[in-house]
Amino acid sequence: METLRFAIIGWGYWGPRLARNLESLPYASVTLIADSNPACQFSPALRHHPRARFTTSVEEVYRSDVDAVVVATPVSTHYTFARAALQHDKHVLVEKPLTASVIEAEELVHLAQERQRILMVGHTFEYSPAVNELRKLIRNNDLGRIYCFEAIRVNLGLFRQDTNVIWDLAPHDISILLYLLNEKPAGVRVQAHAHIQPRIPDIAHLDLTFASGMTAHIHVSWLHPCKIRRVTVIGDQRMAVYDDTNPAEMLKIYNKGADVHADPIVSYRNGEITIPHIDWVEPLRLECEDFAEAIRTGRQPRANGLVGLEVVRILAAAQQELEHQTRQPLTVVSPAS
Amino acid sequence: METLRFAIIGWGYWGPRLARNLESLPYASVTLIADSNPACQFSPALRHHPRARFTTSVEEVYRSDVDAVVVATPVSTHYTFARAALQHDKHVLVEKPLTASVIEAEELVHLAQERQRILMVGHTFEYSPAVNELRKLIRNNDLGRIYCFEAIRVNLGLFRQDTNVIWDLAPHDISILLYLLNEKPAGVRVQAHAHIQPRIPDIAHLDLTFASGMTAHIHVSWLHPCKIRRVTVIGDQRMAVYDDTNPAEMLKIYNKGADVHADPIVSYRNGEITIPHIDWVEPLRLECEDFAEAIRTGRQPRANGLVGLEVVRILAAAQQELEHQTRQPLTVVSPAS
Amino acid sequence: METLRFAIIGWGYWGPRLARNLESLPYASVTLIADSNPACQFSPALRHHPRARFTTSVEEVYRSDVDAVVVATPVSTHYTFARAALQHDKHVLVEKPLTASVIEAEELVHLAQERQRILMVGHTFEYSPAVNELRKLIRNNDLGRIYCFEAIRVNLGLFRQDTNVIWDLAPHDISILLYLLNEKPAGVRVQAHAHIQPRIPDIAHLDLTFASGMTAHIHVSWLHPCKIRRVTVIGDQRMAVYDDTNPAEMLKIYNKGADVHADPIVSYRNGEITIPHIDWVEPLRLECEDFAEAIRTGRQPRANGLVGLEVVRILAAAQQELEHQTRQPLTVVSPAS
Amino acid sequence: METLRFAIIGWGYWGPRLARNLESLPYASVTLIADSNPACQFSPALRHHPRARFTTSVEEVYRSDVDAVVVATPVSTHYTFARAALQHDKHVLVEKPLTASVIEAEELVHLAQERQRILMVGHTFEYSPAVNELRKLIRNNDLGRIYCFEAIRVNLGLFRQDTNVIWDLAPHDISILLYLLNEKPAGVRVQAHAHIQPRIPDIAHLDLTFASGMTAHIHVSWLHPCKIRRVTVIGDQRMAVYDDTNPAEMLKIYNKGADVHADPIVSYRNGEITIPHIDWVEPLRLECEDFAEAIRTGRQPRANGLVGLEVVRILAAAQQELEHQTRQPLTVVSPAS
Repeated sequence: METLRFAIIGWGYWGPRLARNLESLPYASVTLIADSNPACQFSPALRHHPRARFTTSVEEVYRSDVDAVVVATPVSTHYTFARAALQHDKHVLVEKPLTASVIEAEELVHLAQERQRILMVGHTFEYSPAVNELRKLIRNNDLGRIYCFEAIRVNLGLFRQDTNVIWDLAPHDISILLYLLNEKPAGVRVQAHAHIQPRIPDIAHLDLTFASGMTAHIHVSWLHPCKIRRVTVIGDQRMAVYDDTNPAEMLKIYNKGADVHADPIVSYRNGEITIPHIDWVEPLRLECEDFAEAIRTGRQPRANGLVGLEVVRILAAAQQELEHQTRQPLTVVSPAS
Repeated sequence: METLRFAIIGWGYWGPRLARNLESLPYASVTLIADSNPACQFSPALRHHPRARFTTSVEEVYRSDVDAVVVATPVSTHYTFARAALQHDKHVLVEKPLTASVIEAEELVHLAQERQRILMVGHTFEYSPAVNELRKLIRNNDLGRIYCFEAIRVNLGLFRQDTNVIWDLAPHDISILLYLLNEKPAGVRVQAHAHIQPRIPDIAHLDLTFASGMTAHIHVSWLHPCKIRRVTVIGDQRMAVYDDTNPAEMLKIYNKGADVHADPIVSYRNGEITIPHIDWVEPLRLECEDFAEAIRTGRQPRANGLVGLEVVRILAAAQQELEHQTRQPLTVVSPAS
Repeated sequence: METLRFAIIGWGYWGPRLARNLESLPYASVTLIADSNPACQFSPALRHHPRARFTTSVEEVYRSDVDAVVVATPVSTHYTFARAALQHDKHVLVEKPLTASVIEAEELVHLAQERQRILMVGHTFEYSPAVNELRKLIRNNDLGRIYCFEAIRVNLGLFRQDTNVIWDLAPHDISILLYLLNEKPAGVRVQAHAHIQPRIPDIAHLDLTFASGMTAHIHVSWLHPCKIRRVTVIGDQRMAVYDDTNPAEMLKIYNKGADVHADPIVSYRNGEITIPHIDWVEPLRLECEDFAEAIRTGRQPRANGLVGLEVVRILAAAQQELEHQTRQPLTVVSPAS
Repeated sequence: METLRFAIIGWGYWGPRLARNLESLPYASVTLIADSNPACQFSPALRHHPRARFTTSVEEVYRSDVDAVVVATPVSTHYTFARAALQHDKHVLVEKPLTASVIEAEELVHLAQERQRILMVGHTFEYSPAVNELRKLIRNNDLGRIYCFEAIRVNLGLFRQDTNVIWDLAPHDISILLYLLNEKPAGVRVQAHAHIQPRIPDIAHLDLTFASGMTAHIHVSWLHPCKIRRVTVIGDQRMAVYDDTNPAEMLKIYNKGADVHADPIVSYRNGEITIPHIDWVEPLRLECEDFAEAIRTGRQPRANGLVGLEVVRILAAAQQELEHQTRQPLTVVSPAS
């Protein structure tokens, strides 16, 4: 099998992680690493890629003989780098979110189709074995009809200046939501506030409604003392909690619920909790494998461009609602009479 | 010291609990227990009050020689029972929320002042030693300027048919919020959904804004697999988490934060976590003591009528926003183009 | 049904708790409470028993018309009070451990048989719904052949001066062990140390061997920062952890194990964890019910005198080993050569 | 600074981990990797060391130009490989425990002194930032006089056939104990049992006594459903728990204790819990740095040969006690009379 050559654009947090995982694939090699900051060439992480060349010129990446390009730069630049790479007939993996606007995402999807190149987005959690186990349960109807989905992803930092907490953290939860539930939201409401940096929300609540009656709520925050990453899926038969920070008990299935009999009688079921054993594989490794396999075989990867576009659509609707809201009066708490 | 005589109206969940705590006060005695359901006279809990008389007639309570009346009935009846008791010159403790509307609460407050009787509301958590320890820290400026308050109170059930989840659970968190932070909210937004019973929201998110720039978020639910009762207060110096379900570590102070220097530079502090020792006393007992002491001395109790009114104001504003919202278009997620 | 009359001897920690639970039985009443300390008559707990008489004379208890006597005094006095009560034809419930020596326990068992009275010991944990659920699993062979039993029961305090930590805390775990596993130990080894009070061990490890090859280990301590109460049962098919301090997840069944194939090949199974739902009833209440039912019907209660004797046998053997050990040389760690 | 060249003997679990950490040091390079199993040359981990040569001949290692040799093989072979490497004037890092007997360890220590080479043992936990924070507290007298040390290190597997659970797991806890407390034990008792493989104990309890009156207890097991790695240090002023499996709260300081006044009065202090922030660095990395720095500067590393010898002394005394014990009658639980 011929070795696939990869270039990385952006040597910050995700670049070295993606490079390490690509490098450990048997038929892949990272041969080119680009970052506009020349200091990156002295980063310790580069020592693990003795065969890779470093460059500050992104043009060199496009002109090189690499098969694929990984774009691990700030979101505002995703579109430009990904488009140029596709135009040079490279396969492209872009960090999440795919782009900063719906129109950009649509154009990339279109371009990838035209050039018959793979376009993929780094929705890592779609590759989590726990998320996939949960998806199997839902698809198998083990939870019954789904009432609602709740996600919380909070921690202290990292405050970014180029984007708000919705665009930074919610792509993870939206991609999990779409991957698990296979229904696109109809409407979105937002509650968001900027506490640390003016006009850059650092805490946000997204509330999504669906045609089926299902609801979803996503709470993201850069301003919280604890690291919490938890998804709760509530069905009429069972409920499930996926806690990404608890390796020993990442997925819990609660056999409990509220049964509605002749209205208005509600009764409660309270059964056992099950914690399935999950064979753990690093999601980032599976993501890199999926990218490499997609390139080799031509089939679409799980987190393909269309999925990335769908996530951007929801982020953009949330952003629009947020801007609309700031021009709207809100209900006032009546003063003492 | 003369013994105070108490009557209980409503022998459901809270009635027996309040009776037991009043009875254990050295100078108090429960002498009359009323419930419209005659079967209550055979409840095992009555065996602990061998000196108390049981009646199905609330009129008997008003005409009796009791000094004070505890109203532990569904919220829609609070106003009627409390008003009648005040009109008969009884001191009154009403379960939370004080009433089902602002106008009712205002009238009760007014009536209690006129009759010079104590009017108190069962905001139990204002008497939690952990909440009071947290309040001391905030008042002492240990957390610094407060950015935001977050509360979550979820569990499976109990689904009620006479009220929604906001009126049922949020009074606890709103009363904690007001007690801790001493600032009244200016506006409220709501996200709420009814999954189990038509038109009775069982999951809700309240988002409150304040003149100072502080924000608050309250998440309440009857439809959740886990019992979570947690309040997070985030200051610019420290952050605190009060977890009511973890007796050994009910309050955690995180010495961490994000410091804003010359905009836009943010740096992070990450110091120790402190878990103060809290001498535990049952909050319900302290609540009952406060009621009895207020009657004896004439001073206002902590959770007095004005506090109860303030909580009802916020609940009513949330309800109004909820009804307004259902007539409003929400932002639509754009369909694929 | 005629009401059973109970007397309590000893109004310290357990006396009021047992009285409250007996009182709440429909056909039982606590009519007499004895303690040598006259100050006990002013204890708030007495207020809950308005129909009971208080006395400082234990003779009054023997001569009274009560049907049964609860002995809730220090262990050194159990034998004397229980014997006298049996000799006056009272049924007797003694707090754990039954007595301070094997010979005393044997005599009480014999006397109860002779007088045809119920003799019971307060092994509360035999009445825990979680312990009973675990017992069902073991009896049902769900765990397979049992390799070993491990118990830990530690906390800070309460340091006692009349007994050591083995006699104070280990009766709980020994009674759980015997109740779960139905095999009596053959031998015992002990590691115990006195850190706070001279010659009164406050930390101890009991190691028990059984004819079947099964082993058991019990760790008890008065000198530990955390409250831990946990029992682990390891079978060749499944393993179970019963954590008495975690109400939401008191029993966890681990479907995992090490399988021995052709020696020396070991392979590992790693399956799901199951947390059964347990309908909780206060164990002390069930214990009191069992006592009252045994009196009414004449059948032996679960924690009967023979069970209490068996626990005392093991405590006495541990004590003997401990005393033997202090006269034995222990292996010396070789000094530097 | 000249680059140090390292060879690894043994490419199993620890070999690749040590190689990766040595390689990431700026002035170190792994140039030779030896394993008797030729299949190791195809291991994926070798891909991260493109500059290293693989060999099945350990002689090649001795004759090579490497400065230092890492011995990461089964314990029975430690002595032979380490001695040969020292005789060829290589610095040597041996995985724990240093050797399988005291006499072997003494000879290695002597040989290293004679040849003026560094001899180090892989006591990784001495390099844990949490252990070092705890050591600072103890040395600073924050815990007061130390009453006792307790360690538990249990999990399911890995069952080994060449050694028992004491030699496999206890070296970690013994090295932590000696590093924290700076006092050598005087005597040792053991409780150990073989459940899975005949005559190879898989569960063991070591009980150590010290001249000062301090005691220590170490519980190790291959046969447990949960992964627990916890050290508790109990002083007369404060108590500390170091939980290696809880990254967010690895070290907890409990300001509580039992104070002995005029004997026999004991009172209790119950203050706050403090969780210091610990800047985390991978202990294995710090261990590798210490080895490299010791080679460069000639000073002794923290986990030097003498420390390794001390741990082997205690393991050997435990083994001797274990063998002695199997020939000793144990206290028999009296049968029913």
